Amino acid sequence: MQIGRVIGDISATQKHPSHEGKTILLVQPLGLDGSATGNPVAAVDGVKAGVGDKVLLVYDGFAAFTTVGLKPSPIDTAVIGIIDRVELFSETGAPVGAAAAPQQKHKQKAR
Amino acid sequence: MQIGRVIGDISATQKHPSHEGKTILLVQPLGLDGSATGNPVAAVDGVKAGVGDKVLLVYDGFAAFTTVGLKPSPIDTAVIGIIDRVELFSETGAPVGAAAAPQQKHKQKAR
Amino acid sequence: MQIGRVIGDISATQKHPSHEGKTILLVQPLGLDGSATGNPVAAVDGVKAGVGDKVLLVYDGFAAFTTVGLKPSPIDTAVIGIIDRVELFSETGAPVGAAAAPQQKHKQKAR
Amino acid sequence: MQIGRVIGDISATQKHPSHEGKTILLVQPLGLDGSATGNPVAAVDGVKAGVGDKVLLVYDGFAAFTTVGLKPSPIDTAVIGIIDRVELFSETGAPVGAAAAPQQKHKQKAR
Amino acid sequence: MQIGRVIGDISATQKHPSHEGKTILLVQPLGLDGSATGNPVAAVDGVKAGVGDKVLLVYDGFAAFTTVGLKPSPIDTAVIGIIDRVELFSETGAPVGAAAAPQQKHKQKAR
Repeated sequence: MQIGRVIGDISATQKHPSHEGKTILLVQPLGLDGSATGNPVAAVDGVKAGVGDKVLLVYDGFAAFTTVGLKPSPIDTAVIGIIDRVELFSETGAPVGAAAAPQQKHKQKAR
Repeated sequence: MQIGRVIGDISATQKHPSHEGKTILLVQPLGLDGSATGNPVAAVDGVKAGVGDKVLLVYDGFAAFTTVGLKPSPIDTAVIGIIDRVELFSETGAPVGAAAAPQQKHKQKAR
Repeated sequence: MQIGRVIGDISATQKHPSHEGKTILLVQPLGLDGSATGNPVAAVDGVKAGVGDKVLLVYDGFAAFTTVGLKPSPIDTAVIGIIDRVELFSETGAPVGAAAAPQQKHKQKAR
Repeated sequence: MQIGRVIGDISATQKHPSHEGKTILLVQPLGLDGSATGNPVAAVDGVKAGVGDKVLLVYDGFAAFTTVGLKPSPIDTAVIGIIDRVELFSETGAPVGAAAAPQQKHKQKAR
Repeated sequence: MQIGRVIGDISATQKHPSHEGKTILLVQPLGLDGSATGNPVAAVDGVKAGVGDKVLLVYDGFAAFTTVGLKPSPIDTAVIGIIDRVELFSETGAPVGAAAAPQQKHKQKAR
């Protein structure tokens, strides 16, 4: 899975019946320091995530089908968790302190 | 899923029976600002998309099988939705206004 | 799917029984202008393609199994169509004319 | 599979029931010389790995389901082994000696 | 599939039962000229390949399961063939001669 942030949503017509009632979110994958990395992806929302939420993205058809009741569906990406906290550890196993600016970002609540 | 724009179509002989009657579109994946990103892909059309349409691409065998009645088929990419609108939000949750040029592109109807 | 050109073939011993009688082609993926892009891939031939043919590549286990009678097989890539013609359209929907050199390449028959 | 090092963990709410009781680790993929390569990934822990462990990452829905009792689950990445030793060989087939600094790293126990 | 060369092996504890008795090889993917391209991958050995062998890599869960008797297993990559010969052809369909140095490499037996 990958960490991303919800940045928008998408409206589509002529879409598949299994998508009815589902929101398609636009999600920006994030690097370890919380900065944008790569292109945004379109993901079916399985957890009622909101704009700005830091989320877990899953990239696999079968795994993503869990968000539409396991029905075969034209889905390859889904938002499957809302991240509360990312804990980074130093090489000694101790939590990385507040002085480590980029990592510190991850220790704030995402919402 | 990924956002793309239909830029052409492909004629192939000696193709698989499950492809009969299906159009194979050439689709250019797009970045957040609507510019081309990466190489075009060949995708089975599941929604009768036309040239110039902004569409949703799915990259997964099983997920793409939905466009040919769930039969096992030599397909790994499909056009599964026509995008009407991509709504981007600022970090405060407010819609991004018309002044934001690159994002503005996404707020126009795709067709 | 992706567009490629057949550039060679591969002989392998100690291979899987489901590969018997099948040719493994070496295929160079192509960009929109017909130039090589990325590394060549090894693909099971499902359509009796020949060297120099412009072909459709599929990258998915289940989808590729169609080339060996749907048996589970150690295959993740297959040649599943021989391309006759790639038609590119301008933004106005009109076919791109012969003056557009790189796209023109795609309007020639591949074989 | 890919080699990575566990660098943290992730807490998420509103996650899928099949994830209950499972730890989601943050894992940094490593290159041959043991240096970080690419973005960290979020992976379900199937082997009770700890921070600093050098591990094997698997990237496939079905393969990753083995970590949650084969139930369909929104998982596409899992930690499926803890690496004790990576043995590199020279082109002559002889083990690469201690003088080869970058490879040497791999000959130390990971934990 | 992709062409690679076996460069080492990996010992792991706390691994999945379906891996018992199987060797996990470290394989360096190769470009068309035989040079290393991208990061090494860890692959279950399905053909008793040895160090230095030029091999075929398959990247797909189901396809890789063939190496462990089709059991669901935490595997996404497998060595599924030992390459004897890669034959490259020129655009005219004639075999590429010995004068073409980089391609020539491919015409030598891999083992």
